[in-house]
Amino acid sequence: MMDTPLLLNMFVDRAERFFPDKEIVSKTRTKTHRIPYREFAKRSRKLADLLTKLGMERGTKVGTFAWNTHRHLEAYFGVPCAGAILHMVNIRLSPEHIAYVINHAEDEILLVDDDLFPLIEKLAPQLTTVKHIVVMADSTDIPDTQLTNVHSYEALMAEASDGFKFPEDLDENTPAGMCYTSATTGNPKGVVYTHRGLVLHSYALGLADGMGLCERDTALSVVPMFHANAWGLPFAGVFFGTKQVLPGPGGFNPEVLLDLIEEEKVTLTAGVPTIWLAVAKALEKKPRDLSSLRAIVCGGSASPKGLIRKFEETYGVPFIVGYGMTETTPLVSLSNYTSETAGKSMDEKIDARATQGMTIPGIDTRVVNENGEVPWDGQTMGELTVRGPWIADEYYRDERTADAFRDGWLYTGDIAVMTPEGYIKITDRTKDLIKSGGEWISSVDLENALMTHPDVFEAAVIAVPHEKWQERPLACVVLKEDVARTDDKKQELLDYLDGQFAKWWIPDEVAFLDEIPKTSVGKFLKAKLRDQMGQTV
Amino acid sequence: MMDTPLLLNMFVDRAERFFPDKEIVSKTRTKTHRIPYREFAKRSRKLADLLTKLGMERGTKVGTFAWNTHRHLEAYFGVPCAGAILHMVNIRLSPEHIAYVINHAEDEILLVDDDLFPLIEKLAPQLTTVKHIVVMADSTDIPDTQLTNVHSYEALMAEASDGFKFPEDLDENTPAGMCYTSATTGNPKGVVYTHRGLVLHSYALGLADGMGLCERDTALSVVPMFHANAWGLPFAGVFFGTKQVLPGPGGFNPEVLLDLIEEEKVTLTAGVPTIWLAVAKALEKKPRDLSSLRAIVCGGSASPKGLIRKFEETYGVPFIVGYGMTETTPLVSLSNYTSETAGKSMDEKIDARATQGMTIPGIDTRVVNENGEVPWDGQTMGELTVRGPWIADEYYRDERTADAFRDGWLYTGDIAVMTPEGYIKITDRTKDLIKSGGEWISSVDLENALMTHPDVFEAAVIAVPHEKWQERPLACVVLKEDVARTDDKKQELLDYLDGQFAKWWIPDEVAFLDEIPKTSVGKFLKAKLRDQMGQTV
Repeated sequence: MMDTPLLLNMFVDRAERFFPDKEIVSKTRTKTHRIPYREFAKRSRKLADLLTKLGMERGTKVGTFAWNTHRHLEAYFGVPCAGAILHMVNIRLSPEHIAYVINHAEDEILLVDDDLFPLIEKLAPQLTTVKHIVVMADSTDIPDTQLTNVHSYEALMAEASDGFKFPEDLDENTPAGMCYTSATTGNPKGVVYTHRGLVLHSYALGLADGMGLCERDTALSVVPMFHANAWGLPFAGVFFGTKQVLPGPGGFNPEVLLDLIEEEKVTLTAGVPTIWLAVAKALEKKPRDLSSLRAIVCGGSASPKGLIRKFEETYGVPFIVGYGMTETTPLVSLSNYTSETAGKSMDEKIDARATQGMTIPGIDTRVVNENGEVPWDGQTMGELTVRGPWIADEYYRDERTADAFRDGWLYTGDIAVMTPEGYIKITDRTKDLIKSGGEWISSVDLENALMTHPDVFEAAVIAVPHEKWQERPLACVVLKEDVARTDDKKQELLDYLDGQFAKWWIPDEVAFLDEIPKTSVGKFLKAKLRDQMGQTV
Repeated sequence: MMDTPLLLNMFVDRAERFFPDKEIVSKTRTKTHRIPYREFAKRSRKLADLLTKLGMERGTKVGTFAWNTHRHLEAYFGVPCAGAILHMVNIRLSPEHIAYVINHAEDEILLVDDDLFPLIEKLAPQLTTVKHIVVMADSTDIPDTQLTNVHSYEALMAEASDGFKFPEDLDENTPAGMCYTSATTGNPKGVVYTHRGLVLHSYALGLADGMGLCERDTALSVVPMFHANAWGLPFAGVFFGTKQVLPGPGGFNPEVLLDLIEEEKVTLTAGVPTIWLAVAKALEKKPRDLSSLRAIVCGGSASPKGLIRKFEETYGVPFIVGYGMTETTPLVSLSNYTSETAGKSMDEKIDARATQGMTIPGIDTRVVNENGEVPWDGQTMGELTVRGPWIADEYYRDERTADAFRDGWLYTGDIAVMTPEGYIKITDRTKDLIKSGGEWISSVDLENALMTHPDVFEAAVIAVPHEKWQERPLACVVLKEDVARTDDKKQELLDYLDGQFAKWWIPDEVAFLDEIPKTSVGKFLKAKLRDQMGQTV
């Protein structure tokens, strides 16, 4: 067989060659762009050209700090197809962590959306490797700034050559992208994606047993492009020549999303439960035409059955739950119906939908406990482990690699059961993590911070259910003996956290307790605490 | 990313793990078997065990000489998953060529269906490398023979261990299979398939933009398993846990096929036009329930539009034409509707269906002439060239490699045009093109037009020498059963072409034949037809 490397480059070639007129619809801060793939391919090469002029070489890390727009998509290809590495910085990290990941990845160039520039500007003095900041905006203006290394994306684009040739000798194992995932404690951990992994992952998205993404689809990526490759949709969409809809900074507003679904006749969309809860609420207020939708894919945290039922029964839209994480590119499983499930009752089908689904062809999953693989009884819990060609095998330059990657498997930290049909069902997760609106919040980090406050004896942070965000953190605090339990003290503690963490990490509430329940070896017994607080809150 | 090799082994693991109860329905000479994947996986390991006991090692060539049955499918996996190489011998080759390919491949063990054993027995003295012949039959009997190295598949299977462990250290570029393709002249040419190529090809079959093969399908492989991997269906079917229907030696009987489609509720089937012409005829005599079918895939030679229309319009079954060859594993393109085609008129849609289709994601195609790539005007002819990760890069130990594989491309020898939408349309074989007065005439276009005439069963157009024009087209026509072979009918057919083509394209003469000679896989054997007619005309 020909030694044809699996490279993202062939995606751009294919889209440009076969689907030059298919559109990327991109809603930026000021307007809606319609970029045909012909233009997209040209601009991706121009981007590679302009970045090369700024010093980008093979292996150079180029960071993005951006919403879901066509410019971000250009970076998704213009950077890796040139042999450089795209680092999609999560804009929701705390300022401290943003600086950490940019420095740790050694980003030399940053591509920053104009409305997000002030954040980067403030951090600039801490960024040790960044040489250039390119501001992505609809105009060629540069923001008013003291920084001297700031450029306009569109001004450089206007001068760049679309005659730039992507190299033809890249190895398929060349790193193409990077994302960082929040750690339980400490700094975020980096995951490196290779061309090979992203190409195989794109094939998986196109499988009828995957998302069935194809040329006839119109795909709306609600998952941020700074989060786990937006579940791979931007990559696979270019491969298949799919019409893509990128909702920009307004992409978390349910009305904007519903407008786009109606106007662009979206067939497939993907996002976290928080989004679909908000969309469901908006639909109740104002009915919309969802007839173009063939599926909603939902993942990132557990999807309430009521939500699934609402979309499946009321709106007739298949609501497919998936599982994945930054470390897995991310697609591991999807709750597609098998031939067996398809013949069952609606209730049983909704039960299947609410699981994390069937393992995607190419990926291996095992739920293991101390006795090895657990029986497929839907009861016996164990930790979900994963392996396959698009699963990371390490954290980038990080000692914590050894915790998660063992014996050729990724230990996900998620507790799961396997149903008799082979569906994965997450029953719990590493007890220390809180998932709010699809993003991790580390309870341990918050606890550690709280416990540095002079009035705090000890503190545990747990998840409490929340209608909109699924979970929100609750701080359970034991004050030192002589400190009064006042509302002012609660506010003081919250103010104390403010500035140390992203806004959305700050607990909604503080509860004062006499003590935190503990295990025999003095570890917080969070399960018990959750029970206890469940009755209080 | 994890260094997970792309191996067929993961297909067996997946089918056994997730779909142990899904069935392989296998119609052998004496009965219909129903083998669940659980059993299939066991028997594949047992086959590896018994072959190992007969001396199979990594790299050993094991030949099959067999119909589409579960035993052939066991060989499809039991041999390559053990690191050996499966050589699927085309049973329709001439005895001389059968001996050639077995010797050239250096097959050491042959797996032979009992009804085909006499052919191999006769050739045995000429087979220089074969040490063992294993006869596949429903009983454990061995045919009465003078040969001393003949074994019973089922007798050895009964003694074999399913505890055999497939090796875990195979490289994905390990050869897995071999097929030989008929050459225009001389001996057949060998093509070696690697695990990597077959795995990627299987992903392509599963794409919504491919065949969309998935777990919910029931796939009936009418393409022989000794021909171009039966278009990859047996491999991909195991990967996805698809219910597979293998029609055995009766697989070319339209009544048997229609029975299977009805009884097993087949959703997807694939075969050459000859088969579907016969099936269409059988359907006219006796109506059948085709409601389970979601698609018929047709390839191997041009599909008459009348045939496509019959299935699409009369029976409501999408009739998808594909292109491929032994050298391409074989899937290169499929005439799926794009978002653009889908909105067109039925006539335009049938036109799209009748092309060889859109290039499958991952494969690169170019139609080239002496000026480079031809314009996509649906007019300018050139040779179709192909490259990609499941395209061969050589003929096995064969000097003719240099003729077909040049500059990183496979030169297919097929003359094609590209439509403005990017569909490939084969107009001829290089050697079948008619060159009249220095201009090319497409025999395939004329044939297709003739075959839309209600009185024509099949038609082939060939070049005959001409004093003035060098070559002129001759129409060789097989009329439907009850149509009289008159001179008026000849004129009627020529008049029928008039207006559809330029004057100089219209054949000078029509010859009525009882049948068109065909290759072992049902393609028109034009060389033979030319010989035959050369003596007549």
